[in-house]
Amino acid sequence: MNLQGIRVTIWNEFRHEKQNEAVREIYPDGMHTVLKEMLAAQGATVSTATLDEPEHGLTQKVLDNTDVLTWWGHLAHDEVSDEIVTRVQNRVWQGMGLVVLHSGHFSKLFKRMMGTSGELKWRDIGEKERIWVADPGHPIASGLDDYFEIPMAEMYGEPFEIAQPDSVIFISWFAGGEVFRSGCTFTRGRGKIFYFRPGHETFPIFYQPEVQLVIQNGVKWVAPVEGARIPVEMNRPEPLEKLP
Amino acid sequence: MNLQGIRVTIWNEFRHEKQNEAVREIYPDGMHTVLKEMLAAQGATVSTATLDEPEHGLTQKVLDNTDVLTWWGHLAHDEVSDEIVTRVQNRVWQGMGLVVLHSGHFSKLFKRMMGTSGELKWRDIGEKERIWVADPGHPIASGLDDYFEIPMAEMYGEPFEIAQPDSVIFISWFAGGEVFRSGCTFTRGRGKIFYFRPGHETFPIFYQPEVQLVIQNGVKWVAPVEGARIPVEMNRPEPLEKLP
Amino acid sequence: MNLQGIRVTIWNEFRHEKQNEAVREIYPDGMHTVLKEMLAAQGATVSTATLDEPEHGLTQKVLDNTDVLTWWGHLAHDEVSDEIVTRVQNRVWQGMGLVVLHSGHFSKLFKRMMGTSGELKWRDIGEKERIWVADPGHPIASGLDDYFEIPMAEMYGEPFEIAQPDSVIFISWFAGGEVFRSGCTFTRGRGKIFYFRPGHETFPIFYQPEVQLVIQNGVKWVAPVEGARIPVEMNRPEPLEKLP
Amino acid sequence: MNLQGIRVTIWNEFRHEKQNEAVREIYPDGMHTVLKEMLAAQGATVSTATLDEPEHGLTQKVLDNTDVLTWWGHLAHDEVSDEIVTRVQNRVWQGMGLVVLHSGHFSKLFKRMMGTSGELKWRDIGEKERIWVADPGHPIASGLDDYFEIPMAEMYGEPFEIAQPDSVIFISWFAGGEVFRSGCTFTRGRGKIFYFRPGHETFPIFYQPEVQLVIQNGVKWVAPVEGARIPVEMNRPEPLEKLP
Repeated sequence: MNLQGIRVTIWNEFRHEKQNEAVREIYPDGMHTVLKEMLAAQGATVSTATLDEPEHGLTQKVLDNTDVLTWWGHLAHDEVSDEIVTRVQNRVWQGMGLVVLHSGHFSKLFKRMMGTSGELKWRDIGEKERIWVADPGHPIASGLDDYFEIPMAEMYGEPFEIAQPDSVIFISWFAGGEVFRSGCTFTRGRGKIFYFRPGHETFPIFYQPEVQLVIQNGVKWVAPVEGARIPVEMNRPEPLEKLP
Repeated sequence: MNLQGIRVTIWNEFRHEKQNEAVREIYPDGMHTVLKEMLAAQGATVSTATLDEPEHGLTQKVLDNTDVLTWWGHLAHDEVSDEIVTRVQNRVWQGMGLVVLHSGHFSKLFKRMMGTSGELKWRDIGEKERIWVADPGHPIASGLDDYFEIPMAEMYGEPFEIAQPDSVIFISWFAGGEVFRSGCTFTRGRGKIFYFRPGHETFPIFYQPEVQLVIQNGVKWVAPVEGARIPVEMNRPEPLEKLP
Repeated sequence: MNLQGIRVTIWNEFRHEKQNEAVREIYPDGMHTVLKEMLAAQGATVSTATLDEPEHGLTQKVLDNTDVLTWWGHLAHDEVSDEIVTRVQNRVWQGMGLVVLHSGHFSKLFKRMMGTSGELKWRDIGEKERIWVADPGHPIASGLDDYFEIPMAEMYGEPFEIAQPDSVIFISWFAGGEVFRSGCTFTRGRGKIFYFRPGHETFPIFYQPEVQLVIQNGVKWVAPVEGARIPVEMNRPEPLEKLP
Repeated sequence: MNLQGIRVTIWNEFRHEKQNEAVREIYPDGMHTVLKEMLAAQGATVSTATLDEPEHGLTQKVLDNTDVLTWWGHLAHDEVSDEIVTRVQNRVWQGMGLVVLHSGHFSKLFKRMMGTSGELKWRDIGEKERIWVADPGHPIASGLDDYFEIPMAEMYGEPFEIAQPDSVIFISWFAGGEVFRSGCTFTRGRGKIFYFRPGHETFPIFYQPEVQLVIQNGVKWVAPVEGARIPVEMNRPEPLEKLP
């Protein structure tokens, strides 16, 4: 994977890791650090930002220098300020890519991007998940076999309250009996969005090679298109044609 | 058109009509009154609500008794309270239909539903608009010919910053040289949304028979589906299958 | 369910039932007879047509008097004449609804409508299928709970080679480990299409109440829209506007 | 534009150019030659194929060595053999990209890919066309301004009988009064399809820089994705899970 030239900012709520010993054992320096190292190893230029930093680490300057933002939150969605969410949303509309991971489905940011509640069924007992590739030609599925498995996962089940996706790339099967659209893409303004279900605070899912590959593919795919035009002049007082 | 049994609430900003003599001449009792009478004549049970009423006329009780809400705003989008927008959004997710008219594209409500900026090109010099039916099988186009014309209209032009529509029913041609996706549908949760471009404060567009027909069709089409299920139990602690 | 006024033609390949004792025990008069009685009991006007009749029972006159056609085939897709497929396809474009059942995914008709191969994974050992409602607001899911189960089913698995659906209403979970988009809708010309996975020759699936309910909902939903316009004049030698 | 490594085959009906002096003046060696030189100048490896060659120049070997096929036909759609169309369709399903130009909307190949009639309104008097970018973030629009114009064009108007596009990139305005979705993308199997309206036998449209740029962008965008998986094992007799 060549992610050279892509400037990624990893956003992590970073609360579980501070409060919970079990989480800290898996992610001693926070999930964002694991994701950062993984993407940097593929050539991306990676920074991190977390909830408790000033402006949640997402100043305008940081965002202006970000090609792709990844988002993980869980405990404290409500503590994210509306103003920062608006700032991030504006950057996506301009073309910044967005990768939303796991419980990020319930973040203010994702719900605003969808216009839906982001709700889904869930159960957290550590069951097997098998992730099927439903769209094998999509670049985000590149390098995968027909499916891959996560041995211990939280279940997310349909109905998943999202807007109509551009593509449904992955559909999950859970040992407990449910199904879920686990990989979906969306476009908002000039920006591309990829939602990817796997990831959890107490299962070491972000270390799994297939999960890492999909996140790398996702980062590459949502990165801004060269030459994409950001329309600025919307007020057009003069007609292009002579009127009668 | 039989709209019997559909409870419609017409929401109107209702500021232009109070402030501007030219608008008042066209809509002496407000646009909402014209829309109300038109839909009531087809059998709908119609109420109205306006910005300056307490809670903008949209109490929880009003919304709970509304099947379809229509929305027109222009001057004062920012004065609509976030809390009321959230309340309306929740009702749409439960199944209330929503018809957004003309400059409602820039309302907080529509932008939230889309997850986009709602921007578009515009020019307000009163030029001819020809509205083509691009999806002649759609119920919202029922009763129309290949196209209809509006003699004097404000121009709205592409790119229109919306989420991917379920259907593009109408595409407009403007004498001044632009084009626009003038009739689009969306689904959010259990609710259906129809955006319809025509309508303006200083042109008598809401009196035009074809425009009225489309609004009637739209109200009928977004009305809630009988038997639609509102999922409530999302937490599913027990698996359906025995785990190994 | 009120299917009054809808003229349905049930098309069945009707070979399994003649050749195989096990199938005949379940469907002694053919699957089409079971489907016919079920839909007629809801008020539809139902006829049947089968492969071995002249013109496969699908004369132009039959099609001209059909609002909704249902299609089941399996053994003999290749024996269906291209000419009849073209005739049926033309009628769908004019607005006739089409419900494609189970192994009909591999019929000439469905593949032509999709522009894809119609392929999917499969295994026929009689395993449990749980069908989840992914779009609970869709009329085709009306009356169902969160899911329903088929105790013994043939497995169909992703990737399912179809065109992008308008809606994915059902997603199946299989005990053997796969998932499948089991209820999908499409539009082609003025016609609506509903593909529904359940149904098999040696399991009595078409007798199951939930399956029957979905087929009834599907027939109702794909039935032609009143007032839908069939464009006829495509050659437009005269411009609508005066050219310079 | 860097098209290095992309093997393109330009298919041209190549009849107008032989039969009609006016066409020959514009395209003395056939349209395919102009397109070939234009794409080769950007680094693509380009071959051509025409209707009157054996197998229309599209042997299995040619297709197996083609990444992107472009298609232009007009007079003789019916002379294209069904067998060759099937062969091309199979290659698209495997991942070969397809760019369909102008009157190719009525080719057997495009209609099969859509499952629709491919019909549209038309008028051939040489009027101005203005092509608006409706999706400015799409790679196919890269390098364009808000719109570009074609001074003399054949009009194509809505309704355009196609399947639901993945993206509508361009919408055309015609001086005579119509509108048209002039740039649309679709996915079929592993293959991507781009339909682009401009192009004509008696107007020198394929020499226009903006049209050439869009065709280059289109070729780049439909080219196969590295690592895309072609599913081969569809029969899965063994379940992945132990059944009860």
